[in-house]
Amino acid sequence: VKKMLDENRLFPADSASRSMAVRLYETVRDLPIISPHGHCDPRWFADNEAFPNPAALFIQPDHYIFRMLYSQGISLESLGIPQADGSSTADPREVWRIFAKNYYLFRGTPTRLWIDYAFEKQFGLTERLSPKNADAYYDVIAKKLETPEFRPRALFEQFRVEVLSTTDTPIDPLDAHKAIKASGWKGRILPTFRPDSVIDAEYAGFVENLQKLGEITGEDIGTYKGYLNALRNRRAFFKSMGATATDHGHLTAMTADLDAATAESLYGRILSGRSVPEEQKIFQAQMLTEMAGMSVEDGLTMQLHPGSVRNHNKNVYEKFGRDKGADMPSPTEYVRAMRPLLNKYGNDPRLTLILFTLDETSYSRELAPLAGHYPALRLGPPWWFHDSPEGMMRFREQATETAGFYNTVGFNDDTRAFLSIPARHDVARRIDCAFLGRLVAQRRLDEDEAFEVVQDLTVNLVRKAYKL
Amino acid sequence: VKKMLDENRLFPADSASRSMAVRLYETVRDLPIISPHGHCDPRWFADNEAFPNPAALFIQPDHYIFRMLYSQGISLESLGIPQADGSSTADPREVWRIFAKNYYLFRGTPTRLWIDYAFEKQFGLTERLSPKNADAYYDVIAKKLETPEFRPRALFEQFRVEVLSTTDTPIDPLDAHKAIKASGWKGRILPTFRPDSVIDAEYAGFVENLQKLGEITGEDIGTYKGYLNALRNRRAFFKSMGATATDHGHLTAMTADLDAATAESLYGRILSGRSVPEEQKIFQAQMLTEMAGMSVEDGLTMQLHPGSVRNHNKNVYEKFGRDKGADMPSPTEYVRAMRPLLNKYGNDPRLTLILFTLDETSYSRELAPLAGHYPALRLGPPWWFHDSPEGMMRFREQATETAGFYNTVGFNDDTRAFLSIPARHDVARRIDCAFLGRLVAQRRLDEDEAFEVVQDLTVNLVRKAYKL
Amino acid sequence: VKKMLDENRLFPADSASRSMAVRLYETVRDLPIISPHGHCDPRWFADNEAFPNPAALFIQPDHYIFRMLYSQGISLESLGIPQADGSSTADPREVWRIFAKNYYLFRGTPTRLWIDYAFEKQFGLTERLSPKNADAYYDVIAKKLETPEFRPRALFEQFRVEVLSTTDTPIDPLDAHKAIKASGWKGRILPTFRPDSVIDAEYAGFVENLQKLGEITGEDIGTYKGYLNALRNRRAFFKSMGATATDHGHLTAMTADLDAATAESLYGRILSGRSVPEEQKIFQAQMLTEMAGMSVEDGLTMQLHPGSVRNHNKNVYEKFGRDKGADMPSPTEYVRAMRPLLNKYGNDPRLTLILFTLDETSYSRELAPLAGHYPALRLGPPWWFHDSPEGMMRFREQATETAGFYNTVGFNDDTRAFLSIPARHDVARRIDCAFLGRLVAQRRLDEDEAFEVVQDLTVNLVRKAYKL
Repeated sequence: VKKMLDENRLFPADSASRSMAVRLYETVRDLPIISPHGHCDPRWFADNEAFPNPAALFIQPDHYIFRMLYSQGISLESLGIPQADGSSTADPREVWRIFAKNYYLFRGTPTRLWIDYAFEKQFGLTERLSPKNADAYYDVIAKKLETPEFRPRALFEQFRVEVLSTTDTPIDPLDAHKAIKASGWKGRILPTFRPDSVIDAEYAGFVENLQKLGEITGEDIGTYKGYLNALRNRRAFFKSMGATATDHGHLTAMTADLDAATAESLYGRILSGRSVPEEQKIFQAQMLTEMAGMSVEDGLTMQLHPGSVRNHNKNVYEKFGRDKGADMPSPTEYVRAMRPLLNKYGNDPRLTLILFTLDETSYSRELAPLAGHYPALRLGPPWWFHDSPEGMMRFREQATETAGFYNTVGFNDDTRAFLSIPARHDVARRIDCAFLGRLVAQRRLDEDEAFEVVQDLTVNLVRKAYKL
Repeated sequence: VKKMLDENRLFPADSASRSMAVRLYETVRDLPIISPHGHCDPRWFADNEAFPNPAALFIQPDHYIFRMLYSQGISLESLGIPQADGSSTADPREVWRIFAKNYYLFRGTPTRLWIDYAFEKQFGLTERLSPKNADAYYDVIAKKLETPEFRPRALFEQFRVEVLSTTDTPIDPLDAHKAIKASGWKGRILPTFRPDSVIDAEYAGFVENLQKLGEITGEDIGTYKGYLNALRNRRAFFKSMGATATDHGHLTAMTADLDAATAESLYGRILSGRSVPEEQKIFQAQMLTEMAGMSVEDGLTMQLHPGSVRNHNKNVYEKFGRDKGADMPSPTEYVRAMRPLLNKYGNDPRLTLILFTLDETSYSRELAPLAGHYPALRLGPPWWFHDSPEGMMRFREQATETAGFYNTVGFNDDTRAFLSIPARHDVARRIDCAFLGRLVAQRRLDEDEAFEVVQDLTVNLVRKAYKL
Repeated sequence: VKKMLDENRLFPADSASRSMAVRLYETVRDLPIISPHGHCDPRWFADNEAFPNPAALFIQPDHYIFRMLYSQGISLESLGIPQADGSSTADPREVWRIFAKNYYLFRGTPTRLWIDYAFEKQFGLTERLSPKNADAYYDVIAKKLETPEFRPRALFEQFRVEVLSTTDTPIDPLDAHKAIKASGWKGRILPTFRPDSVIDAEYAGFVENLQKLGEITGEDIGTYKGYLNALRNRRAFFKSMGATATDHGHLTAMTADLDAATAESLYGRILSGRSVPEEQKIFQAQMLTEMAGMSVEDGLTMQLHPGSVRNHNKNVYEKFGRDKGADMPSPTEYVRAMRPLLNKYGNDPRLTLILFTLDETSYSRELAPLAGHYPALRLGPPWWFHDSPEGMMRFREQATETAGFYNTVGFNDDTRAFLSIPARHDVARRIDCAFLGRLVAQRRLDEDEAFEVVQDLTVNLVRKAYKL
């Protein structure tokens, strides 16, 4: 059978490490996918409608793809990226042709690995995408999307996803999740409590969001106590809907531990709409500590994703809105920033706090030393720009010697691109096998241990950290 | 034939990657050299006089060499480094003996690779330099330097340099460039517009430089408008002399987008000679944005080299002046710093802005994410201390997955050491082949693609980015 | 013979690099151990008493071990870590069982390499530690510890330690060192002058320490001049006791060069006990420069270990005190911070100043460029969290191309865990051989040079830098 994907892709080039990697991979290749953090739309699984066309499936939801095309002068309009006012006029087949013509731009990127995997494994396409075969590709994919096997629920089952967590705002009534439950379908889709929209005073619609939070919970958000109770209330609701985790996307990792009166007064300033940026930062810092405290109470695992400078490109933001490939990483400090929270809750075994970073310099300098000491801390996998073969290898090389394997939590695909999920997990498994294969080849780890570790990295650590 | 240089030097040690690297290298080894950024003296090619002696050729212009010798306690005086007052008394043969005696210090450094290459390829010397053969080396080199084949123009042709750009201040009348043109010699030596000396208020002779800028252009540099017009005027002159690019060496990557009145008033403060450092920084920041605007107008590619703390060693600076191996890198932030400029011009396809760094942590955290989004941005090759085998490999490993290959611009030798140019390009080509060889061996890239990419990295991307 | 340790562990996985590494290693494996910086207790060698039990030997003094166990929820009490009040009740055999049960946590860490080495080489244990063999292990080790061969002096000789430096406060009368000398035993145990306790105003007992410093020297520490003389006096005493070096553990690498009156007045503030943190920082910065000046006078090599945020975990600190695995690295800047000291003494060949870092980003960006220029500077080996196979390899890869090998100073074990010393030096030698093996395989270094370099890295550079 003709193949585009090599069986041994991503394994080390030297034969000793490679042969060990191959043997390890055979034991994890077919394990179920556990996806405890990501951005799939639960509505897909509630409605179970066909994806409309190849461009809508592959290109328009995937900022990795359209940011690269944009960087080379291709307009977002021509790619059919919806504008902030909802308009989008590009013909999907034309979008696909642009993509095919520029597919060479993705050489050496993880996007190429993910997309080729989906083409071959899901659609049986084994000739590299090019301008010549663009239309043929489009037709094959479009046709398959019309079949029952390519409906979201069928794909979910075909991918052998054991759990898929979404990311949801506290004021979301979780209707899609309710509909999934009500439908009787057995796919396990869990919400995640992500309260940025009611904590970050710069978030679009912040004040309205707070009002809704008050209404939906019946709490008086006019007081700090009422506000905290409202959050507690929604956490409980999310938990009742299956959530096992919260998630927090802050500009920095700053935490605070204010006394009650100061916190109350600060909340008053935030609520007034007249707060200055410095107050907003401290409020966010305080809220991370409050959230950790609530996690100690209710057992929800806490995730922190700091360090993204959002909407860097003003033109793109004004025309197309959020999440359009224009968020940029920023240097992020953890040791001093996390101290207030860690001194309050870091020694508490009831808390699991998973730290992520966009600043790889923190792996060996701050994150591994912190996670190698505090019982409450775990390290999330390489995130976003670093969710890539070289990025994952750097993470293992830079974090393992201080934090070990057992202060990490397996892989997150963290994607909006549903079709890429199996490919992303496959890349992660291969890189873990490559790393372990080298450790065995260099006699830094015994073979029997490597087989145990690779199981832990693939399924056991994620189940434990996220309480799945 | 006896050889000092191994044919397969710098390729990966494992056979799968190595054999692919070898095959790739065969297709680029003999391509012409394109050198769009460097510090060769155009006078060499205008006058075409013989280089005076081996020490003056190899040691005294090369701060990589004399900084290493200095770090081990060898005085700059003993190496014949000219002092600020012009004096220099060391006997060149004695200087050469010191170099030979200490050649072991360069083990594991790129300097060693560059020098050995020149020894063998240009002078036929195939025994490693040592105290024993120091005099013999000196005699062979000195004798060859007297021959017509070793005149600058002959070497330029022998090296197969297609284009060589120099770096020139706006108040330079470019007489050497004029003389080259007038001579009828066909070597393509292009000036580059580098206005630091009339933008950085701390630059030695800043106020006099401004006066000269006014005189040479007939513009009234007493006003901001006149000052900007004077710069525009000189850019046009440089362009008429063949320049395709500008270059900017700032302490940080900070940019600003001030309103007209504020900029005008700030310029007044700068011109007054009474500005404080903070004002000077903001003025430089503003001028980067102005320069980007002029590049949009006139099409000159813009280069930014930030992050060097110049003249760190006060004693050395006072006695020997600038560029004596005592400049030190500094942490450099880009995401926030570049925002004003990028929001103004970053989406404009008429601008090509090439970013360099001395802070490798920015590759994966800031530079690749920025260049993988903004149409105007490209990433320059590893610079200065990072222009080395390991440094280049880190750049490819850390930037490619997010920026791809096509947001990079090929190699710069950036040197004052003319003889090292072929060696430097050879090292860069070998490392690119090594990187691509590994990608193919790990099946992350198809063979036919690797052959295309290596051509692009060697000649096509540089021609496009620098409009050559 | 059954073996737990593979002969070729840690060497590169590809055969070309590996076979060269093997040949290099054979020439340094059996060289004596030179340990110029560490934290062994000189009392061990003065008293030469048996180590009490396996837990007291391996676990309780080794923060690498108990921090990892603590990070996974195992209490320090259960590990018998002594509390600040001196109490400790855990049964050593129970502690050992906990360790054995959790030995899998150390997979992929240097601790695992060090411990396995000691088990096999010192105790003949060749089956991996596990819950099943925990008691048998305990019994074997406990029994051996009772034998004369396992007394500190016998181990010192068996390990072939040529020199072992301790770390001592200026107010320490060095009684243990005197007792060693008086005993006639020939083991070379040298003190190191580490004055943090009389320079850092936040150090516990700072004011009392100053009083003692005055008493022990007869100098008037009420004046800055008297204080400096007291330090000079103690440096001379340490030197008379064999010390060849000082060591300084500061939060940052900041240095200052204040005029005499300002320094005097600042000292007055410090002495008053009413100084604010900013003053304390500047005082420490000034004292680094003063210490460098004294090193110029007395020839003691100066070491600087900056960047550790001490006692990060308030609970652990209050209950268990210092050095309990809760110190965390912090981003550290050197180029601007070191400038005052370097401009005063950096060109002086009488000074040897060895820089360490917990911030790996500084290797290629700041430390190698500085050490590749200033005659007084040398780079210390990877420190603490970075004293590991991957950490050492990163150091060589990131520092060598700019600083060369000859601006480095060999290996430091820097440990409180005496039994781990041979293992730590063995890992360092193996990684140096692995790095050099690759350079030879890639033809970046000739074979004969690699054999010379590996001798220099193992014994010659350390002897020279520390004047041993």
